Amino acid sequence: MELPFIGVFLLLAFGCCLITSDAAPQQKASTCGYNSCTPSKPGVINVHVVPHTHDDVGWLKTVDQYYYGSKTGYQRAGVQYIIDSVIKELLKDPERRFIYVEMAFFSQWWQEQTETKKAAVKQLVEEGRLEFISGGWCMNDEAGTHYNDIIDQMTWGMRFLNDTFGECGRPKIGWQIDPFGHSREQASIFASMGFDGLFFGRIDWVDRTHRKANKEMEMIWTTSNSPGEQSSIFTGIFYDHYSAPSGFCFDVVCRDEPFIDNPRSADYNVVKKVKDLEAHIKAKALSYATSNIMLTMGDDFNYMSADMNFKNMDKMIRYTNELGSGVNLFYSTPSCYVKAINDEAGSRPWPTKTDDFFPYSNDPHAYWTGYFTSRPAYKGTVRKANTFLQSCKQLHSLAGPDSSADGQNLIDSLRRSMGEAQHHDAVAGTEKEHVSQDYRLRLHDSLVDCQQDVGNSFSKILPIGTLELPQQEFCLHLNVSQCSITESSSRFVATIYNPRSHQVTTYVRLPVMNGVYTVLDPDGSELIVQLVPLVNAALRSIETERPKSSATHELVFQASQIPSLGHKTFYIVKTSARNGQHSTVRERQSTTVRTAEAGEKIAVGNGKLSVNFNAAGLIESVVVDGVTVMMSQNLMWYAGMNEGNANSIFDDRPSGAYVFRPNGTDATPISTQATLIVQTGALVSEVYQQFSDWASQVVRVYKGQSDVEIEWTVGPIPVGDGIGKEIVSRVTTQIPSGGRFYTDSNGRQTLLRRRDFRPTWTLNVSEPVAGNYYPINSHIYVTDDQQNAGAVVALVNDRSQGGTSLKDGQIELMVHRRLLYDDHFGVGEPLNEPGDGPGLVVRGTHYLLVNPSLAGNHPVSLIRPLAQQMFMRPWMSFSTTSLSFTNWKNNFRTEKSGLTAPLPDNIHILTLEPWRDGTHLLRLEHIYDVGEHSTLSQPVTLILDDLLADYKITSAVETTLGANQWASETSRLPWNTADKQQQPLKMSTKNSSTKTSVTLLPMEIRTFIIQMTPK
Amino acid sequence: MELPFIGVFLLLAFGCCLITSDAAPQQKASTCGYNSCTPSKPGVINVHVVPHTHDDVGWLKTVDQYYYGSKTGYQRAGVQYIIDSVIKELLKDPERRFIYVEMAFFSQWWQEQTETKKAAVKQLVEEGRLEFISGGWCMNDEAGTHYNDIIDQMTWGMRFLNDTFGECGRPKIGWQIDPFGHSREQASIFASMGFDGLFFGRIDWVDRTHRKANKEMEMIWTTSNSPGEQSSIFTGIFYDHYSAPSGFCFDVVCRDEPFIDNPRSADYNVVKKVKDLEAHIKAKALSYATSNIMLTMGDDFNYMSADMNFKNMDKMIRYTNELGSGVNLFYSTPSCYVKAINDEAGSRPWPTKTDDFFPYSNDPHAYWTGYFTSRPAYKGTVRKANTFLQSCKQLHSLAGPDSSADGQNLIDSLRRSMGEAQHHDAVAGTEKEHVSQDYRLRLHDSLVDCQQDVGNSFSKILPIGTLELPQQEFCLHLNVSQCSITESSSRFVATIYNPRSHQVTTYVRLPVMNGVYTVLDPDGSELIVQLVPLVNAALRSIETERPKSSATHELVFQASQIPSLGHKTFYIVKTSARNGQHSTVRERQSTTVRTAEAGEKIAVGNGKLSVNFNAAGLIESVVVDGVTVMMSQNLMWYAGMNEGNANSIFDDRPSGAYVFRPNGTDATPISTQATLIVQTGALVSEVYQQFSDWASQVVRVYKGQSDVEIEWTVGPIPVGDGIGKEIVSRVTTQIPSGGRFYTDSNGRQTLLRRRDFRPTWTLNVSEPVAGNYYPINSHIYVTDDQQNAGAVVALVNDRSQGGTSLKDGQIELMVHRRLLYDDHFGVGEPLNEPGDGPGLVVRGTHYLLVNPSLAGNHPVSLIRPLAQQMFMRPWMSFSTTSLSFTNWKNNFRTEKSGLTAPLPDNIHILTLEPWRDGTHLLRLEHIYDVGEHSTLSQPVTLILDDLLADYKITSAVETTLGANQWASETSRLPWNTADKQQQPLKMSTKNSSTKTSVTLLPMEIRTFIIQMTPK
Repeated sequence: MELPFIGVFLLLAFGCCLITSDAAPQQKASTCGYNSCTPSKPGVINVHVVPHTHDDVGWLKTVDQYYYGSKTGYQRAGVQYIIDSVIKELLKDPERRFIYVEMAFFSQWWQEQTETKKAAVKQLVEEGRLEFISGGWCMNDEAGTHYNDIIDQMTWGMRFLNDTFGECGRPKIGWQIDPFGHSREQASIFASMGFDGLFFGRIDWVDRTHRKANKEMEMIWTTSNSPGEQSSIFTGIFYDHYSAPSGFCFDVVCRDEPFIDNPRSADYNVVKKVKDLEAHIKAKALSYATSNIMLTMGDDFNYMSADMNFKNMDKMIRYTNELGSGVNLFYSTPSCYVKAINDEAGSRPWPTKTDDFFPYSNDPHAYWTGYFTSRPAYKGTVRKANTFLQSCKQLHSLAGPDSSADGQNLIDSLRRSMGEAQHHDAVAGTEKEHVSQDYRLRLHDSLVDCQQDVGNSFSKILPIGTLELPQQEFCLHLNVSQCSITESSSRFVATIYNPRSHQVTTYVRLPVMNGVYTVLDPDGSELIVQLVPLVNAALRSIETERPKSSATHELVFQASQIPSLGHKTFYIVKTSARNGQHSTVRERQSTTVRTAEAGEKIAVGNGKLSVNFNAAGLIESVVVDGVTVMMSQNLMWYAGMNEGNANSIFDDRPSGAYVFRPNGTDATPISTQATLIVQTGALVSEVYQQFSDWASQVVRVYKGQSDVEIEWTVGPIPVGDGIGKEIVSRVTTQIPSGGRFYTDSNGRQTLLRRRDFRPTWTLNVSEPVAGNYYPINSHIYVTDDQQNAGAVVALVNDRSQGGTSLKDGQIELMVHRRLLYDDHFGVGEPLNEPGDGPGLVVRGTHYLLVNPSLAGNHPVSLIRPLAQQMFMRPWMSFSTTSLSFTNWKNNFRTEKSGLTAPLPDNIHILTLEPWRDGTHLLRLEHIYDVGEHSTLSQPVTLILDDLLADYKITSAVETTLGANQWASETSRLPWNTADKQQQPLKMSTKNSSTKTSVTLLPMEIRTFIIQMTPK
Repeated sequence: MELPFIGVFLLLAFGCCLITSDAAPQQKASTCGYNSCTPSKPGVINVHVVPHTHDDVGWLKTVDQYYYGSKTGYQRAGVQYIIDSVIKELLKDPERRFIYVEMAFFSQWWQEQTETKKAAVKQLVEEGRLEFISGGWCMNDEAGTHYNDIIDQMTWGMRFLNDTFGECGRPKIGWQIDPFGHSREQASIFASMGFDGLFFGRIDWVDRTHRKANKEMEMIWTTSNSPGEQSSIFTGIFYDHYSAPSGFCFDVVCRDEPFIDNPRSADYNVVKKVKDLEAHIKAKALSYATSNIMLTMGDDFNYMSADMNFKNMDKMIRYTNELGSGVNLFYSTPSCYVKAINDEAGSRPWPTKTDDFFPYSNDPHAYWTGYFTSRPAYKGTVRKANTFLQSCKQLHSLAGPDSSADGQNLIDSLRRSMGEAQHHDAVAGTEKEHVSQDYRLRLHDSLVDCQQDVGNSFSKILPIGTLELPQQEFCLHLNVSQCSITESSSRFVATIYNPRSHQVTTYVRLPVMNGVYTVLDPDGSELIVQLVPLVNAALRSIETERPKSSATHELVFQASQIPSLGHKTFYIVKTSARNGQHSTVRERQSTTVRTAEAGEKIAVGNGKLSVNFNAAGLIESVVVDGVTVMMSQNLMWYAGMNEGNANSIFDDRPSGAYVFRPNGTDATPISTQATLIVQTGALVSEVYQQFSDWASQVVRVYKGQSDVEIEWTVGPIPVGDGIGKEIVSRVTTQIPSGGRFYTDSNGRQTLLRRRDFRPTWTLNVSEPVAGNYYPINSHIYVTDDQQNAGAVVALVNDRSQGGTSLKDGQIELMVHRRLLYDDHFGVGEPLNEPGDGPGLVVRGTHYLLVNPSLAGNHPVSLIRPLAQQMFMRPWMSFSTTSLSFTNWKNNFRTEKSGLTAPLPDNIHILTLEPWRDGTHLLRLEHIYDVGEHSTLSQPVTLILDDLLADYKITSAVETTLGANQWASETSRLPWNTADKQQQPLKMSTKNSSTKTSVTLLPMEIRTFIIQMTPK
């Protein structure tokens, strides 16, 4: 079951100033990188032999099992041995090269090494013999990840490299060789990190065919709507996969033949192997535009016994150069390859690309769109953990200098676990069940560490009197209405922290026993509260998940205007039932509960908005400001394709952890009617819709809200009929969307999608449902007009999900999947969690946004605030107390903002975290794209100096997005493209006499290493 | 099909003198060996952690496939990587140790290394960190090998070590960890090589149980009938196998868990692993007598990725010493282990052992006695190839100094191939079919090389005129009567070389076309010849094996008194059919051929000896010097146990490559009657017995011979009935042998066997046939009296075979096997050669010795000459010529001995071969054991100086048997035994004023490095 969250809020505005710093990332005279490359030769095919290993940060085995090489029954793979043995081989011969990618593993290995070994490795790095590529904590998924997580995990990995190796450890190339589809936002992030290239292996098979035929395997990818070189990145696609050419895998886990070069041996094979390789090289070269090609020599967890690999690659290079013709092989790296083709004069302009590489299919019936939703509970956990990580980091920075040298230890734990979680078999949901459990455990343990850090921070920030702050309790199961402190205490305080840069107003729901409650806000004012009964019908299916709760109700109140990067404390008392007023209060706090009659048409609303249900109990319309939008919504299921006979690969391609392959072309409603329980009260009206004993929803309208909250609870999905099921929430309107719909890219940019269509090649529709699925990390919508004059319907989600629009006016999100067959892409298990239990119950939230008339507003301008609200929800912590409210307030701050003032609505602090040597890392982000809003899409200038309430920013030096390189020292390779566009003026930080201003363009993120001194 | 040989001969006597030499094996001040050992600690169990790899020189893969690591489908194993990676790991840490055994692999690896790497490895060897154990070319089989081969293969491996590493490369320990049974002769050889200990893993399971219970896993093994310390060797038996304790195999091919020592990891396992290991150590220590035990850390082809092994062993040692109690682990070697227990004071006297460890069984129904006969053709080839190797080496030494630096290249090839062939899955016949084919190919190619060397030697020795010696042709298929030169030439010479130290008289059989032939001996005297028709009936089954022959007859003549280490040339002319004498001559040379009538009783003989057949065509008696011995002989078959159900391991134990498990307790005759064709002539009388279309014999009596030659031809064994068959030749007499029979040990010592009995423990007869089988390399016999007064019947064989005596008076040898199921000991194939053909036909020879009255002679004294004759048969080469006999004789020596005079009958030159730097290796052997003969069993003294006809031995320095250590500098560890015996006086070489004499005790072999100068 998932970790908890609560939700709903608001926003506001701004401040600041800056000075340069010398808390610099290391800089060295470079004998590495491009300076270490072997030059290509003219007139031949230059073959860059790139030894590499692809080390999944968890998949069939857990992270530790991969590191240590245990549990070989799952997979013969041990990363400690890979790095050990590769280093030894590199030390043997200066010609040899190797690249390494995943810092989750490398950093663990590093800390086990002797100083002598470390010095030797540094030497290798400084000579370009060992090169780090990508250099994130993992090779992250691109579908299920939020950009905040991607940036963090890349930053954390590259920080290790920068701290350890300085300039020569700095990655210049993105290396996403295994993720199953590629997002525009990921490419954009890499461009902003100063990368000169990006490589990957998996694109749609038809796309690949066309590109091969047209020598378009390499291109310049324009990754944002603010075009120009700074947002473009050279992108190369592998000929087929990232493995060695067939016959040339010399790894200990491979079966290809080694070079047998004793001419007396009956097995002598040098001539044959050289001939085979030459043929491969020449065939491959036909699909690439320059005289250079890359031979990726490696595969998953290769090089455990690197001697085998290098010994035979040495021979491969030597003999092919000696005996082959027209080819020139040499050890190289992806950066040297990029440099070589960039250097190659006289080539045609590079082709360009502006859309993304979703969805990925490798045959007509294998659309890798199932993993957009696989393991929905874990996906939800990861999203929430990010909010906590950001809160934790912010509070640590705001709480002042660390008192001990290892002051960040408790945060590092979650930084690492979240880095692991972004891996393309972690949050992707494509790992084995036991691995998924390990990820949860690691994340849980790290969350506990970070909770302790938050407690430490609060202990510095909150106390203003003589008392120490009581121990903070973090209720991890609020989402299933379980929290021992709120259920059992008659007097407790709830501290709500808002990690956003704007004030937020949210509704709080706390599990309690029936009673009468007094909630005091930070000023001591008593708040309106509502006690909402926990309806058995809606909870029944998750009863087994909350065995420790005896709560009967949820206590609801509004926490308004929680300060930006700040907190408010609420003082809550369960009052005595003795006095006469009691029953009046009880009535005022109570919720009216009734079960709808058969055929009764129910409506709930808040004056501004109402939701109407038809006689069958399903939503039939939403009325917004008096305008009715006809609309149906239901939970439906696709039958997952089962395992067929194996006559063809297509017959034997079930729906599985990776692949979504419905058996049929439409979904079936779980039920065509629902039982309704209607609960109305002072703050919230909600309709419990029961579709079956494993599928229900709560449709909520809070007072003052302009969206509908739908909390779905699905599971255990029944599979007793032998059919795997994939559950969607589908909203259908009459909006004539013309085949178009819009989805986010990693929660940031919004991209146009067109049904049954690909922008750059002709799609043959072989999977009409799965082939139209896209990853949704934030929102999906349809609208009827490109001029922002018509209607829009949108869903905003709380985790990564697959989504589509299969008919005009319709959008759907897949919320849960349970399948009975493995889809034959390696995980070797059906996606059937938990494998040994009754099946997983998942609960999540969608915000349904309906607007009958955009009236000139771009739809995204309506969605962004909701998306922010969903993404960065406040965190709560609790403590019991015997103090009176006054005593509490005299001893502890009940309200505080970390900012001098909220930031402008279109700007927020993406990152504020303690960095190294007393510095902090600050990222400011413009959260609107070009053209989304008449004023919010404009550039904004901030003064940095006084951004923070309690600290003066005395120094701020800009870095690239990854914080591993000064922005002023960054240069990227220029590329020749036919549609070369004007580079927009980079709005640099400028130092006036005393203040430092920062201008942010639409969608821009700017990164600074800052020094803060208490005001 | 087999390689060729011909047969039959004689012997004679002696000469010589000697001076010391400085062509010394390298000597260095030692920081290795015992000086490098980590001392044991008092009061704890000292655990010698011994990292090792067991690298079969061929088994599931060929030698090259194992070396290079190709064909991983058969097995994931690559020796080049093992040595590469082990060296790297040893260099990392001076505490680490490793042992290496098989020089076939190590020497190949060595020659591929750089000088830098070689220097580093030498340093490791000099510091005792890399130690060579056994150090033969392979770890030889102990059942199917002849002692001459064992000594050669050990010598060749240790020579590489001595040349390369000097003293620190010298093995001190025998390491026969995998062979399937252990011979007394092998142990004797190791003792003579100066070894201080011998270890192995496989002994009978009941024996092991008793030894464990009685702490008798280690003992002093008395390995010869000349007792004393010099023939005793400390022998240790492993607790179970040579692999690491369960749970502690850290190899890349293993599945045990590595140490996971990060306490935060969910998989942390240090405490559990230490506990498991401590329990294992303490259990094991109960079966051993001292405070030391050995942990063998390795298995087949382990350490390909040695980092894994050492990294985890480092942790195992560290954590177990830290967390365990009463144990002290450290890296060690078998020699250090031996030294430690030898040093340990106050222990009880070591138990002793005098018999051998045959047969081996690892459960009541798995007697590993099938491999004594498996792949009989290959076993025959290996035995013959040894004769050629000895001849080739002798001739090379006798031909004078090499003209080029790589003068021994052509011999080295066969030295290596014969080294490989002795491997315990090579000549053992327990390799896969394709590997067996590769062994044949390698042996064949090497034989061709050695033939060229013989040609070169003859070209130096034979010419005495102006002409060059014509090209010598070596007919490899004489055994199937095929030789193009004898079949097609009307004038050719046959040169017969006798590698024995005594004159030999033999009968020659050459395939020819019908005609009249003149054969002139070296003096020009015309010899009696006989033309024996090739009888279709006998040849039919091997017709497919000799497609290139059109021979109709065999030309038989006697080559008498071929000189010791010398040759005779015979000049052969197919005469014209034109003159009148022709038909007379033809008649004189002809053979009378007739088919026996039904029921006719046939007899053939030579006056001294006759063989009588009964009315059914089977032998019924042999008459020797007028005394009739009633006797039957027949070819019979055992039904091999087929694969059963797998309810118990015993039900699922078929007869296979290793295991002999007949279904039933007796063999069935192939036929109870035989068709006979009788051929008689001037030189030989022979009876062709046809039992079936796949089984026949020729029973031959040559003029002047006192034994009966039985040439059997068996195959393809029919298996159409679904039953595998194992064919034996059984001789039954009335001799009351009282359950006793005698077999040789690797062709040298003779050991008493008793039916259904083991000398040192109580045998529970679970397999009454297979459990009584023993390896026969030379002879098996039964007799009725211990006082040499009664009758004896013996079989002398031409290759390794299994044999037994199941009833009193009876002996049998298994000649061929064809089985349909794998016996589940790893080879993974049924023994069914060739797998894709009609099945193998094998032909071989037994000498049947019958003596009705020993008259005081020890039976072995009658057998030894026959055994020598069978073992060391002369080789022939051919050339056509247009020269007249006189011209030939004027240009080429037609007769020459390499010795000044033949040696005494009880002494022979076991080895004469070119060594290094112009020296030669000479081994003299006493071939009678104590008590075998009144005079021949006496010590003999030779003068070395004038041993050779053309050379004076100017220097002779004695070495240990392996020629890698001066005898004078050898010392072995002393051991405390209860039955300590008087050391007989070692009869040393002594230098008189001018001559050097050598005294040889019974069964003694003495080894010298000599220098020769032409007289």
